Amino acid sequence: MTRGYLLSVEGNEGAGKSTVLSMAAEYLASKGIEVVMSREPGGIAIAEQIRSVILDKNNIRMDARTEALLYAASRRQHFVEKIVPTLEAGRTILCDRFIDSSLAYQGYARGIGIDRILAINQFAIEDTFPDLTLFLDVDPELGLARINANKNREVNRLDLEALGFHQRVREGYLMIAERFPDRIVRIDANRTVEEVLEAMKRELDSFLERKSRMS
Amino acid sequence: MTRGYLLSVEGNEGAGKSTVLSMAAEYLASKGIEVVMSREPGGIAIAEQIRSVILDKNNIRMDARTEALLYAASRRQHFVEKIVPTLEAGRTILCDRFIDSSLAYQGYARGIGIDRILAINQFAIEDTFPDLTLFLDVDPELGLARINANKNREVNRLDLEALGFHQRVREGYLMIAERFPDRIVRIDANRTVEEVLEAMKRELDSFLERKSRMS
Ligand SMILES: Nc1ncnc2c1ncn2[C@@H]1O[C@H](COP(=O)(O)OP(=O)(O)OP(=O)(O)O)[C@@H](O)[C@H]1O
Ligand SMILES: Nc1ncnc2c1ncn2[C@@H]1O[C@H](COP(=O)(O)OP(=O)(O)OP(=O)(O)O)[C@@H](O)[C@H]1O
Ligand SMILES: [Mg+2]
Ligand SMILES: [Mg+2]
Repeated sequence: MTRGYLLSVEGNEGAGKSTVLSMAAEYLASKGIEVVMSREPGGIAIAEQIRSVILDKNNIRMDARTEALLYAASRRQHFVEKIVPTLEAGRTILCDRFIDSSLAYQGYARGIGIDRILAINQFAIEDTFPDLTLFLDVDPELGLARINANKNREVNRLDLEALGFHQRVREGYLMIAERFPDRIVRIDANRTVEEVLEAMKRELDSFLERKSRMS
Repeated sequence: MTRGYLLSVEGNEGAGKSTVLSMAAEYLASKGIEVVMSREPGGIAIAEQIRSVILDKNNIRMDARTEALLYAASRRQHFVEKIVPTLEAGRTILCDRFIDSSLAYQGYARGIGIDRILAINQFAIEDTFPDLTLFLDVDPELGLARINANKNREVNRLDLEALGFHQRVREGYLMIAERFPDRIVRIDANRTVEEVLEAMKRELDSFLERKSRMS
């Protein structure tokens, strides 16, 4: 059986990741590709437990490296219990945030260093990088404005960070995109939903074409 | 102020670590050294939360690399909140298990690889290796027999592992001791408590002498 593809969607809060993700899943399904959507911790009990330690608002003394190791641990369990079996069953997985979020948030914005965060995450995913990453590049202020317009969303510890932090996250993403040009494509996400979805489809088409030429 | 020393005690279960640790603390105190005893997670709330995820008997699906990342995360928080401030206050810290436990258990016995576990733990402790590590080398069967004789001790998930696992842990410790000969001293812990304590005192004396010659 052909192994499925691992695709990820990345970007600042409010970039439109979840919106794009479900449209991408529909688009791929319409092309006959079996798709599973996921996001960490993805309903994996152990990963959920770990995530609840990270997001606990009482844990204000949590060190940035502790947080980075916990994200890697949660990612590991989601990877082993869900991503790997899905890919091995020949299905494609579409993941809402993956390794690049750690590189941008912990590695760059929190100042730990992209290389250090890369190393612990390569340990977690055993070098299974995404085949394609859609980086939705939004002005952080616009992203936050979109989210704040949506009252149903629960505010978590990370949302409370100042705007400067989100600016650094975006800078981090730009550096990572430059570093991994073979798998990361940047999509201007400051545009309308329709325009972003068109760009997403073009990138998926070009990815699938490349893959079909390779096989 | 002179920075304190970081000392660790390592070895298989039932080697006598806790016994030796408190005697070492008394011995150092009698020489005028201010000592703080600790063991991970050491009463650090975040580290305790992480540890309870690791030791949860329901988490039978926990992957070995997830466990390794969680130990590193717990170690990190204990390190930042307790070890570093203690050393900086000029006190010596005596730690019941530290990085070498991860190298022996996760790196060697669980087969992840000592180098890989070393890398994620160096991330956690920022290369602050112990100044001296007392490795209490006991025949794993004897160690387990000592523990089973003690009915007050609660049995945890790791105790349930087969003897073969504990044999591999010991092999791991031997390899690590060979790799870090400058800081790890091996003490034959198959002997009586009195003999082990005598050996421990000799090692501490020789360590302190080396340090006083260096300053
Ligand atoms: N291109 C767009 N233009 C305007 N609004 C958008 C656009 N994309 C998404 N939105 C809206 O912005 C809000 C945030 O979008 P979405 O939840 O998809 O972002 P996200 O990147 O997943 O955010 P988070 O990081 O919080 O998960 C939603 O209300 C969504 O309908
Ligand atoms: N050298 C020794 N000879 C005989 N009994 C010992 C010796 N050292 C310790 N013991 C006894 O063996 C038991 C285990 O010792 P101890 O708790 O110090 O081991 P430990 O290495 O800390 O074990 P654990 O890994 O479970 O924490 C205790 O009941 C202790 O009194
Ligand atoms: Mg989202
Ligand atoms: Mg003990």
